[in-house]
Amino acid sequence: MPAPPRKRRPYAARMPVAERKQQILDAALQVVVERGHGKVTMDTVAEEAGVTKPVVYSVFDSRAHLLAALLKRERDAAVAQVVDALDAAHVDIARTPPDQLLADVSRVYLNGVAAAPYRWRCILFAVDGAPEELRAAIDEARELLRGLLGSLLTSLVARQPEPPAVDIDILSHSLVAFAEMAGRLLLDHPDRYDVDRLVRSATTLVRLVEP
Amino acid sequence: MPAPPRKRRPYAARMPVAERKQQILDAALQVVVERGHGKVTMDTVAEEAGVTKPVVYSVFDSRAHLLAALLKRERDAAVAQVVDALDAAHVDIARTPPDQLLADVSRVYLNGVAAAPYRWRCILFAVDGAPEELRAAIDEARELLRGLLGSLLTSLVARQPEPPAVDIDILSHSLVAFAEMAGRLLLDHPDRYDVDRLVRSATTLVRLVEP
Repeated sequence: MPAPPRKRRPYAARMPVAERKQQILDAALQVVVERGHGKVTMDTVAEEAGVTKPVVYSVFDSRAHLLAALLKRERDAAVAQVVDALDAAHVDIARTPPDQLLADVSRVYLNGVAAAPYRWRCILFAVDGAPEELRAAIDEARELLRGLLGSLLTSLVARQPEPPAVDIDILSHSLVAFAEMAGRLLLDHPDRYDVDRLVRSATTLVRLVEP
Repeated sequence: MPAPPRKRRPYAARMPVAERKQQILDAALQVVVERGHGKVTMDTVAEEAGVTKPVVYSVFDSRAHLLAALLKRERDAAVAQVVDALDAAHVDIARTPPDQLLADVSRVYLNGVAAAPYRWRCILFAVDGAPEELRAAIDEARELLRGLLGSLLTSLVARQPEPPAVDIDILSHSLVAFAEMAGRLLLDHPDRYDVDRLVRSATTLVRLVEP
């Protein structure tokens, strides 16, 4: 009968690297949102993940790399969530009434916020001590989404029998501001501002492009 | 013939205390916006104001007191600017069409932003290293203005022959978000988004309460 393996690590179950990486990043996100960016260290992340520090170092060789990976993961996931919703809207633009379109996009976005509150809290609130890079990455993502929204609005307006005179540029800025505000309300007071109530309000905005 | 006064101070012209205080605070605001909150010291403020450090100490006995006074001055001035506009709108609510009312309020606010860009930059942007107290003070001011805007919207809606079904709470949140966004565009790209263009866009928002 063979002897049991000797080098078992008592504090961390074996895990494929990709899965381990996500576990560490999940823990780091938790530290960021609950305690602020300044509190993210290899120690606090290891503690939050319930692993030893060498396990953290086996995946990320420095705090800077860990934070950069976290920032990239959260921003990309958030953008993907919204881009998918906008893409789907573009596909359906010919056969969906504008108010239904806005309701659908808002609902996908707000359900996404509700499903990943830590991700969105990190993005929608000026989390204490957020590094300059995070703010720059958020600004960049906002510009990207605003461009996509602008092109959606342009199609929407062009489709009207009598295209209304709207300032698409400012309107897309306004919709992004509205989306951020709605996301914050949902995160801060989910009991008061649920997804349905916020979607209902969003659809009234459609009167701007379809008077 | 009397001798000339002996104790003339070479670096700072005599000035009444109240005026000196404003001069020091103006310099501090400049340091905050141009270099960040972390760079505000009795030294940098003295240098910016073109006075000696003892002159700064003659008005504020510590950096903390100076920053607190600055924060209070800027927030109160910003709130007063907007409250005055909203008050005037309340007075005129019975005889001014809603779109004109919104145009008037937006114009007063945006002209205020354009006239005091440093004040509003300090409030509308997450200035690097802004202390927690500043953010708390801004949140408080935002809540106050949102309440006033809500009461204005309530009067406006009640006045309609057929009052539309709008969510005043979310609409007032939306208008504050719009106002902040418009102020940021004006500060960042005054050549592209001037007051007139932003006011025109704001008035299209009135269709929300007057369909």
